Amino acid sequence: MSQLPQRVAVREVGLRDGLQSIAVVLPTERKIEWIRREYEAGVREIEVGSFVPARLLPQLADTAELLAYARTLPGLSASVLVPNYKGAERAIEGGADLMIVPLSASHAHSLANLRKTPDEVVAEVAKIRAARDAAGAKTLIEGGVGTAFGCTLQGEVRVEEVLRLMQALLDAGADRVSLADTVGYADPRMVRELFGKAVEIAGERLWCGHFHDTRGMALANVYAALEAGVNRFDASLAGIGGCPHAPGASGNAATEDLAYMLASMRLDTGIDLPALLALRADVAGWLEGQSLHGTLWRAGLPQTFDTHQAARAA
Amino acid sequence: MSQLPQRVAVREVGLRDGLQSIAVVLPTERKIEWIRREYEAGVREIEVGSFVPARLLPQLADTAELLAYARTLPGLSASVLVPNYKGAERAIEGGADLMIVPLSASHAHSLANLRKTPDEVVAEVAKIRAARDAAGAKTLIEGGVGTAFGCTLQGEVRVEEVLRLMQALLDAGADRVSLADTVGYADPRMVRELFGKAVEIAGERLWCGHFHDTRGMALANVYAALEAGVNRFDASLAGIGGCPHAPGASGNAATEDLAYMLASMRLDTGIDLPALLALRADVAGWLEGQSLHGTLWRAGLPQTFDTHQAARAA
Repeated sequence: MSQLPQRVAVREVGLRDGLQSIAVVLPTERKIEWIRREYEAGVREIEVGSFVPARLLPQLADTAELLAYARTLPGLSASVLVPNYKGAERAIEGGADLMIVPLSASHAHSLANLRKTPDEVVAEVAKIRAARDAAGAKTLIEGGVGTAFGCTLQGEVRVEEVLRLMQALLDAGADRVSLADTVGYADPRMVRELFGKAVEIAGERLWCGHFHDTRGMALANVYAALEAGVNRFDASLAGIGGCPHAPGASGNAATEDLAYMLASMRLDTGIDLPALLALRADVAGWLEGQSLHGTLWRAGLPQTFDTHQAARAA
Repeated sequence: MSQLPQRVAVREVGLRDGLQSIAVVLPTERKIEWIRREYEAGVREIEVGSFVPARLLPQLADTAELLAYARTLPGLSASVLVPNYKGAERAIEGGADLMIVPLSASHAHSLANLRKTPDEVVAEVAKIRAARDAAGAKTLIEGGVGTAFGCTLQGEVRVEEVLRLMQALLDAGADRVSLADTVGYADPRMVRELFGKAVEIAGERLWCGHFHDTRGMALANVYAALEAGVNRFDASLAGIGGCPHAPGASGNAATEDLAYMLASMRLDTGIDLPALLALRADVAGWLEGQSLHGTLWRAGLPQTFDTHQAARAA
C-alpha cells in the first residue's frame, strides 16, 4: 500500500465555488457565522470569495468584508479567487493569505469562461507576481489549472498540455499550483497518473486537488490523489456548487463527507466532525430549496467512529 | 501504481439485495425484462433472488421462476442467496450456477439476522457442501462474509475474526468467499488492508467485494479493492437496497456508476453503458416513488467517453 500523507488539509470552498452557482444571496452575517463556525470546527483554510465585479456575481459582492473578518481568526489561511490582475490587486490590498488564479487547460473553456487563452493567463500571473513582489506583500499566488481531466466544451484535454501549463505557471512565478476536475470527468486511474506526474514536476508546490462529484467519484479521486502524495483538497459544505449546465448534478466533494473519509482512514485533519455536521445542518436551512448533496448528514457517524479515533490518538 | 485487474466482472444484485428492501412487489415479467436487458447490455453475472420463505420476503417469491429463465441465457452466471440448508436444496434443484450463503462476522448481527452464530453458519456450509456433492450438482458455494467492516448493532468487528471466519468457510467447503460492507462503515484504507489480507488467504477463491454507499464511499472502496487485486463487485441498478434503519440512505454501489468508473479506468467489463442507462431509466419508472441513487443517469456520459473507449480498444 502506498504511503499516505499523515496530515491532510481540507480547504472549504463552499463560500466561493458553492455560492457562486446558487442564485440566493446569503447575507454577510450568515457567511461570517459560516466562516467562524467552520474555523471553530477546526478548518484552517477557507476560500472566502472571489474578487470579480459585483454585477457578475452579486452573491460574492461582500468578499472584501469576509476577507477582513477571516484575517481576525488566528492561524486561518484565508484565500480568494482572482480572475485577473484587478482582482489580484484587491486580494493584495485586503491582505489575503493566498490568491487563486484560475487557468483553464481547455482552450475552448478558457476563451468562454475567462476570455483569455491559457497562455494569456500565464502572462497575467507573471504580472501579478511582479505586483505582489513590488508591494512587498505576503499573499501567495496559486495557479489553479482547471478542466485538467477534460472539458464539456472541448472534450479531451491532453495531459501534456496540462503539465506544460502547470510548468508555465510555476515559471511565471506562481508559488503554488493545483489541479481541478472542473466538470467531473476524472477517474481514480487518471488522477493517480496525472497527479503522479504533477508531483514529479512541482514537488511541494503542487498544492491542492479539486474534484467535482458530478459522476460520484470525488472521494475515489481524492483517495487516488492521496496515494500520489497530495495532502490538501478543496471541498464545499453540503457539496454545493457544480455545473449550471447539469441541474441537480452534484457539485464539489462535500466537506463533511471528505473530512469523514479522511478521519476514518486515520489521517489527521484537525476537524471536529459533529461540529461540522451541526454547521452543515444550519447552512442547509439557510439554503433551503437549493440542491444540496452529501451522505454523512443523513447516515450519521458510524458507531465505530470513536473507537477509530481513540486508536488513532493512541 | 498498483497493477489493476484488466478485466472486472460486475454482478447485478438489485433483484435480490435491492428489491428485498423495497416494499413494492415487482411483477415477474418486469424482473424477467430486467434480467434479459441487463444480459443484453453485457452483464454476465446476476443474483436473481433469494430462497427464503415467501411469507418473509414476498418481493422475492418468484425466485425459482427467475432462476429458470436466467438459465436459458447462454453464458450467464445465475446466482441466488440461500440463508440456510433448505434454501440451498432449492438452489441445487433449480440448477443455480452459484449460491451465496451469507455469514455475518458480527455475532450480534448474526443472531439478530440469521438466528445462528457465525460458526453455526460455517457448519451449515459444510452440510450444504456435502449435499451439493452428493447430488453431483455443479452449483458453486460462495460464503459471503457480511458486516466485515463493522456493524450497527455490535460496533467494531475485528479483522482477525473476519479472516478466521473466511478461512473456516473455505475449510468447510465453500468454493468461493466474498466480503461485504453491509452497513457502509468501510473506507479505502480499511478495504485495502482487509482485502489485501483476504487475498493472501483465499487467492482466487476470494470472489467478490460488496460495498454499500451509505457514506458515499462505495466507489472509493471499489478502487481500493481493485488495487488489492479484487476483480468482481456486486452492484445494484439505480443503487437500490440498503439499510431499513436509515431511510433515504444510499444502498449498494449503483451498477451504472460502477460500470462507468471501471470503463473510464479502461478496465474491461463488457458492459454497454448506453444500454444499461436505458434499462435504468425504465427500472426507475417501475419503481416510481422509491428511493433511487446514482449519478451517471443524471450527468450522462462525458464527451470524452468514446475517445477513451477507442483508446482502450487500440
